[in-house]
Formats: sequence, C-alpha cells, structure tokens
Amino acid sequence: MPTEDKGPSPQRAEPISYQLLCLLRDHGPLSRVELADRLGQPRSRLAIELDALAEAGMIQGAGPAESRGGRRSLLLRLNPEIRYAAVDLGTTSIDVEITDGSLEPIAAHSEAADISVGPNVVLTRVNEILQKMRADGAYRRLDALGVGLPGPVSVRDGMPVFPPIMPGWDRFPLRSTLGIEHGCPVAVDNDVNIMSIGERHSGIAHTIDNFLFVKVGTGIGCGIHLGGLVHRGADGCAGDMGHIQVDGRGPVCYCGNVGCLEVFFSGSSLAREALAAARSGASPALARRLAAQGTLTARDVGDAAAEGDMTCVNLVRVGGRYLGEVLAGMVSFINPSMIVIGGGLAGLGHLLLADIRAVVYKRSLPLATGNLLVVLSELGPRAGVTGAAVLASELAHRRRF
Amino acid sequence: MPTEDKGPSPQRAEPISYQLLCLLRDHGPLSRVELADRLGQPRSRLAIELDALAEAGMIQGAGPAESRGGRRSLLLRLNPEIRYAAVDLGTTSIDVEITDGSLEPIAAHSEAADISVGPNVVLTRVNEILQKMRADGAYRRLDALGVGLPGPVSVRDGMPVFPPIMPGWDRFPLRSTLGIEHGCPVAVDNDVNIMSIGERHSGIAHTIDNFLFVKVGTGIGCGIHLGGLVHRGADGCAGDMGHIQVDGRGPVCYCGNVGCLEVFFSGSSLAREALAAARSGASPALARRLAAQGTLTARDVGDAAAEGDMTCVNLVRVGGRYLGEVLAGMVSFINPSMIVIGGGLAGLGHLLLADIRAVVYKRSLPLATGNLLVVLSELGPRAGVTGAAVLASELAHRRRF
Repeated sequence: MPTEDKGPSPQRAEPISYQLLCLLRDHGPLSRVELADRLGQPRSRLAIELDALAEAGMIQGAGPAESRGGRRSLLLRLNPEIRYAAVDLGTTSIDVEITDGSLEPIAAHSEAADISVGPNVVLTRVNEILQKMRADGAYRRLDALGVGLPGPVSVRDGMPVFPPIMPGWDRFPLRSTLGIEHGCPVAVDNDVNIMSIGERHSGIAHTIDNFLFVKVGTGIGCGIHLGGLVHRGADGCAGDMGHIQVDGRGPVCYCGNVGCLEVFFSGSSLAREALAAARSGASPALARRLAAQGTLTARDVGDAAAEGDMTCVNLVRVGGRYLGEVLAGMVSFINPSMIVIGGGLAGLGHLLLADIRAVVYKRSLPLATGNLLVVLSELGPRAGVTGAAVLASELAHRRRF
Repeated sequence: MPTEDKGPSPQRAEPISYQLLCLLRDHGPLSRVELADRLGQPRSRLAIELDALAEAGMIQGAGPAESRGGRRSLLLRLNPEIRYAAVDLGTTSIDVEITDGSLEPIAAHSEAADISVGPNVVLTRVNEILQKMRADGAYRRLDALGVGLPGPVSVRDGMPVFPPIMPGWDRFPLRSTLGIEHGCPVAVDNDVNIMSIGERHSGIAHTIDNFLFVKVGTGIGCGIHLGGLVHRGADGCAGDMGHIQVDGRGPVCYCGNVGCLEVFFSGSSLAREALAAARSGASPALARRLAAQGTLTARDVGDAAAEGDMTCVNLVRVGGRYLGEVLAGMVSFINPSMIVIGGGLAGLGHLLLADIRAVVYKRSLPLATGNLLVVLSELGPRAGVTGAAVLASELAHRRRF
C-alpha cells in the first residue's frame, strides 16, 4: 500500500565543486593546500574541479598567501561579481537584500506590505525594489535568488501550498515566475525555515546540527534542523506549532479547533489581550498608548512590560509559559541541542526566555535538557534574508561546472 | 558558546561495498550487471569491490542467472554462513533470533524476564540462550550482534544512559561486554528504535522515509524516521512521548510531573484502571478474570473489550484519544507520511486505531493529514528482533573490505 514518500535522500554526498564553493563562501580566500586539507582530498583530485570553476567564472586568483616558509601558494577566491538576491516576504513586510558570493550585504531594503493582497501586487513591488537596486549599481545580473514565504511551501515545486493567510497564493508558480523575470535559479522556502537556515549559517546556531528555531510573531512556527539538515516534512509543513493544543477546554481558534497555542500566545493574541487590558483599566500604560495611537500591537505589550507595567509583564509571562509547555513536549520528542527564539516578538526578550526556560527545564525529560540551551536569535530581523541568501548560494553552488 | 553537537553527518555517502552488501541482503542473488544498474555505477567500478568482498568471505558465486539472451551472467550472493544475532531486551521479556545474511531467521527464542534484576543476570541468561543455539547448530560464529534496550541509549558509546526503569544498567558497557563474549561487533540501540527499523526494513513502513513508530506497551515511546534515517536526538533520547503533558490539571506521574500521557494511557495505567473496574463491579468480564487469575493486565482489558465488555471498550477508546491528542501535535510538528502503532498493546488493534485516527485527523493541520496513513505494525512481536538484525548487518557491511 504505501509508496515511497518525498523525503530527501541524505545519503547523497554533495559534489566536490559544491563543497569547494561553500568553503570559499564561508572562509574567504583559501589556497589549494588549505582547500585540499579541509576537504580531506588529495590536491590532484581538486585540480580539475578548480579549473572548471575558474572557467565558469565562479572563482579566480587572489594573489599570494601569507608565507609559511617555502614557496608561497596562490589564494583562490569567489568571483567578487557574484550576486544573490534574498527576499523575505512576511505577513506584513517585505525585506530584500543583495549579497555578494560571501553573503555580505551589498544593498538592503525593508518596507511594510500586506501579503494578503496576492502574488501579483506583492511580486510587482518586489521586482520594483530589485530593479531600483540594480539601477543603483548593487548588481548587474543575479546568480540566484532565494525567497521565503509565511506559509507552507513545496520546496520541490517551488510554490506555496494551502497557505492559510495568503489568498491567491495557493500553488502560485513562484519559482518559475521569479526565475523568468530575473533570469536565474530561484529557491523557495517557508519564512521560518529560511530564518533557521540564516541562524545556523551565521547566528547563534552556527555549527549546531540539532536545533529548533521558534519564530514568535503574528503566529508561531518552528524551523527544525536535525542531523545538520532542515526537516520540512512529507508535505512541506513540518514545524507547525501554533495549532498544537494546549488546553482541550480552551477557546476556539480561527482554525476551527479549540485551545491551540496561538489562541493563548502569539502576536495576534497579545494585541487582543492588550486592547482588553487597556479598556478595562488593568494597564494604565496600554490605556495611554491606545489613546495616543488608536490601536495596540504586541509590541506595545513588550514596550510597556519593559517600562515595568505589571499587567504587561504578566501577559508576556503567561504566554511564555504556554509556549514553554508546547516546547517541553517537543524537547522530549526531538531531543535537540538548542532552542532559538526569534521573530518579531523575540523583542520581548529575556522576560519571555525566562518563562520558556522555566517550563521546559521543569517539564521535559531530564536527559533531554541536561545539555539543552534555550537562547534568543542573534540575527534578529536579518535572520530571514540571511537564510534566503544561503539557499540562493546553495542553488548556485549545485550547478554542474 | 555553542559547540558542535553529536548529531549524525548525513552528507556522508555509504561506501560502495556497504551498498553492494545491502542489495544482496535485501534482493537475494544478483548478477554484476544488476548490481551495477541498481547502484548506477559502471561495472568496472564494482569489480575491485566485489573481488575484495569475495576475498573477505562475504559473497560468493551462485551459478548462472536466467538467460536474457546472449551470454549468461553469473549470480553473486551473500555467503550462506553469515550469521547475525538479534537480541530484543524488553522490560519483561528476552527475544533472541539468529539470522542468516538475508536476515532470514535460523533460530528463535522468547522468554519472560525482568530487566530490573540488572545487567549481570540478564546478560548471563542471554549468553546461555545463544550458547544453546550455537550448540544446536544455528551458528558457528557470529558476524555481528544487534541488541535493543528498553531505555535511552548512547548509540555512540554502545551503552544505556540514565534508563529510568533499569537499576544497575546506567552506563553499563554493553557493547564491549557482548563484543568480547561473542567475538563480533555489537550495535546497541533503544528498543523502540529497533522496532521502527525492523518495520521499515520488512514491515508496513517499507520504503517510507518519514514515519513515526509508536510503541504502546508498559510505557509509550516513539521511533522517529526522517529522510530515511532514524533520528535519535542530541542525547539519544528522542521519541520520549510518554511524559508529554496531556492535562496540566491531571494526576501526578511517577516521573514527578503532572498529567503525563502515561498516567492516562499505557500498559500500567490500563492495568490499574482494570483493577478498579473489576473491584467496583463496573466490568463483570474483568471481575471474572481477576477472580480466576488473582491479577489483571492491559491484555485482559483488550480481551474483554474484544468480547464486547463496554467498560473495557471505553477504557481503550478514552486511552486512544489521549494518545491521539499527543500524536496530533507530533503530526503537525513533524509532518510524517505514516504513523505505525506497535508494541504489546497494539493487540488492542483496530479499536485503538479508530480513536487515534479520529483525534489525529481532526486535530492536526489538514495539510499534514491529507496523505497521512495511521496503521498497525505488520511485524508485531518480531519487529524488535528484525530491527536488531538489520543493525547487526549494517555494522557487518560497514567493515573495511
């Protein structure tokens, strides 16, 4: 009855050319000896690969290495003209970066946006932003483009699938549309996955093989890294934490079930509770903000909590405990080395962290928490574009040279 | 701050000799052409490897293949003298099998035992069983031995770590003890992991890359297969489901926390509830059994439910719903293709399955359940020894030839 599912085949080793390009991306100019050492390959084995990469314009000479005695070896580096575009589409934002081959930013742009207006409007705006960057000299042509979306994505098909808050996006051919527009390969992934990939590449999870990246924003999602690879699940929707039940007697969620985590803790639920606290007089700090702004967001709760408003401190702590309860189960089940808290509400910071830690360390299996770190994202709002650039570079590195 | 954790490095491809041996194990005698086709390698590339394997006594000729026209090619097969020992140590049982290189059973033995008497008594008995099998001609020497334990295991160190129900076993050097005794390499893993490995090798999860194997027995545990590999977690304790909280207001568990799944549903909790139902008169069927046997187990609940005792049917259904609630969260989080229910209580069968399915399909993300199968184990009580034999063979195949 069962047929082969669509999971990755991790036994496949990446080709040498891919590994060489990743080394030069992450460690800067290296000599042939250093490359051979790091790959554990004889230098002769690399010569053909390096020639092909130079031929393809991916790498070039970078002058002599510092002398270690004897003949000075020549350094190799990535072509400084390599350019990747990284696009992080959020529920309410567009973030775009152009990077060089080492993923260093060349140009960056962020603006508010509404993903629910549909792909045509959003992508028109993305293309305008990119064209402006190109006109400003950030790039001449793109080697690859990486894009993250706030919903489930079929990485294989390069498109969103059944995204719940994105009318018009279901099975929109994002990869081919952007690929034709920009004449380069395009990688599409979920926004939480790209944040987690960014955090692993150059954030606090650097070199950590087994970790969970929890995005706390309008909703709650999780990027799952196991054995050094992103786990996306059989249908590309792994990491959905927001609708795990925390109380079978709890209120109804917009998804139709009762007592989901997001009903108790998320950007939306905090904003709702903030309004109630402002109107009831429970929080003078929120009442002032509501009078001044006419509305309240989760950020106001964080700011008021930072000022010492006890109602807001309490909202964050109670929410942190609900999130902690769900995470405690995931820690027992997955046994990761690290949990990274990121996303818009990570600004609630150490207050949130304290309560998540309290619950996780109390509730999870002792063996699973003995070496477990629970930390805040290091890259913050840049995690998404960083991960999108990593995906773009991996796509470029995987070309046949 | 964070250092590299101990996760596997899935980028490493298995050597050709390993892949050749696995093909001959799983598909029987094959010609050089067939081997080359299946591996996608030129025949010349395989010649040296096959010679080395023949030299090492792992493979041998098996006569001409059926003619496909033209010159008839010679078949290769595993040496029929290859023997693996598979040992499944449960909380209350010892199961031992001797298999040939194709993992076909040559001899099998099962008996009741008590893991809590400690490693010396248990291993003495295991060695007696094996010596008896040897004396009866099941093997002359073992090529490898695989063993499963009912608790967390450090696969790297080949020993149990902090097992909660196994006094005397913590960090007992199981791999080296058995290795010295039997003069062969030894693979040690958790009992649930070996069951899941068995089920993937020759059970209902055959060819499924992403699945969860849930063992419902005295306790509840889960084997996690992602991308075709077992996920064991940073500390080897991934899959601990029994102590995930299902009700924050629930009763205290033996682990010290409140409302764990095992308090509501497990072999132990069913036995406890069965006693109460027998004594209160709620279940005449259980009262009869208690009078006859002097005690009750979860199996009595299953048997009485099968006879139509409504109290027992209800106990199973309520338990199935608690298990379903925890699984619903895992399905949203992991997005597997299949859930396999196994272990001693899998005998509760389709009654249990119906309620697990009802909750999982209702509670989990629709995208994650669209293609999800929830099924019973095909191998039943043989899942554990089958997986232990698979691990033993993989160890033997990984030798340098």
